[in-house]
Formats: sequence, structure tokens, C-alpha cells
Amino acid sequence: MKALGRQIILECYDCDAEIINDVQLVEQIMVEAAIEAEATVIKSAFHPFFPQGVSGVVVIAESHLTIHTWPELGYAAIDVFTCGDQASPERACEYLLQKFGCGHHTTLEVKRGQMVPASQHFEPQHFEDEVVVPLQPVLRKSSFR
Amino acid sequence: MKALGRQIILECYDCDAEIINDVQLVEQIMVEAAIEAEATVIKSAFHPFFPQGVSGVVVIAESHLTIHTWPELGYAAIDVFTCGDQASPERACEYLLQKFGCGHHTTLEVKRGQMVPASQHFEPQHFEDEVVVPLQPVLRKSSFR
Repeated sequence: MKALGRQIILECYDCDAEIINDVQLVEQIMVEAAIEAEATVIKSAFHPFFPQGVSGVVVIAESHLTIHTWPELGYAAIDVFTCGDQASPERACEYLLQKFGCGHHTTLEVKRGQMVPASQHFEPQHFEDEVVVPLQPVLRKSSFR
Repeated sequence: MKALGRQIILECYDCDAEIINDVQLVEQIMVEAAIEAEATVIKSAFHPFFPQGVSGVVVIAESHLTIHTWPELGYAAIDVFTCGDQASPERACEYLLQKFGCGHHTTLEVKRGQMVPASQHFEPQHFEDEVVVPLQPVLRKSSFR
């Protein structure tokens, strides 16, 4: 089923502790990752923690990128959520893994906005052995984002 | 295994279209949800789309809340990510479902920062029939966030 967006949950281990503790550098890399993904950056908000760690978000026209870092563990929790067909969350992830010097990582992809709201629920159409739920309203209007 | 944080991925359908299209109201409700969760709000960044829709994030000391709305579909994609034991992402979700007049929803909980980084990998300790991987460095230092 077509989804409105895709969200990649990226667990990054063995990152470069100095890089992921530098709030300005983390913000720069996250914004660059959004550009790598061919997303449109709207605004960003980053915050350093005492004694270490960074949290931040890049709001993009296609949704968002977020990061939270634990330099003392070499760990960063990253989300890359994009809507539409143009932006590539995978390219953003590849860029981030490289720039943060990530030693190993795991990813989980979650499709967002897959279900047809109950108020717009259609009877499924049967085509041979597959069931297709019409999603035209979702597809047409999702182009706003 | 103890995780650094918990992220609830909340898919909200049949929401009140007027509410989820009002950028100031959405920001207010998201900040209130963070407070309901007993989280500490650091900053927020929200953006209205043309002709409709809102994107925004609340950065909290415990991680973040994000939202992207499609008023024309009555749909909102929400994430509530909290670290530590104090904040309750469930309370934030309950508050948001009520305030957005959500008709039905789905949730997915993802545990973040579960794995011990390879560079800090300990030999498991065996206690009778259970295997315990020491996680003191994670537990101690995660209190920064």
C-alpha cells in the first residue's frame, strides 16, 4: 500500500565522539544530509547538553531529520522522515553514517500514513487474487507536502 | 535489555481538520503534551504549509516530539521520543489523541539505544538461567539527557 511518507530509524554506534559532541558541527552535518537527500530545509533547532551530548532537528518541507547523541557511548539516535517521491532518506542516512564516522549501525524503516482514514474508507476492489484499496485521495493531496 | 529511550510512533486518523491545520494551536498542544509527559521543554519550531498542513517539533531535554499534519485527510504523523525513566511518552500520546479529536489511531513503540556499542562490549555475566549484559555505563551516563 502506498504510504504518505517513509521514516528511517537509524541507530548509530561507534561514532566519532568529538564530532557528535560538537553542536555546530552536528547541525551542519544534519542540514547537509537533508540537502543530500534533495529535501528542502525550512528551519533547524539544535541544543548542546551538559556535560555532553547534542539534540536537534531539521524541519524540511518533506517532514524532518532528528538526532540525539551520547558522545560518551559513541551512540547517536537518528530519524530521517520524508514524504513524497523526490527526497531520498537513504542518501541522508549514508551521508550521516560517513560524516559521524559510524562503526556499525542498524536501520528500521516505518511507512507512515498507510491506512485510509475510516471517514474516507472505500470498499476494497478485487483484482484476481489481490486486494487493492483505492488511495487516490491520499495520493492526490499528499503532494502538498 | 534496558534501552536509552523509547519512541512511540503514533498514527492519528480522523482528527479534527481545523485543529490540526492551526499552526499556533498545534504548537500549543504539542508543548502541553510534553509538559503532560513530565518532560522539560527546551525549544519548539513549527511551520504552516500552503494550502494546508503543519510540521513542527518540540525539542525536550528527554529527546523530542514531532508532528506532521494532513488536515485534508484528517491525518497526523506524530513521534514522541523520551529518554530516562521520568517522562511518560504514553501520557503525551493520550493528551494528543484527545486534543486533536482523533477518531482512531495506531501506535508502534521502538526502543532506542538498546545495543551495547562494540567498543564497549562486555562479556555477559551468567546468573542461574538468565544472561545479563552489564549496562552500567549506559544507565549512569544516560541520566545526562
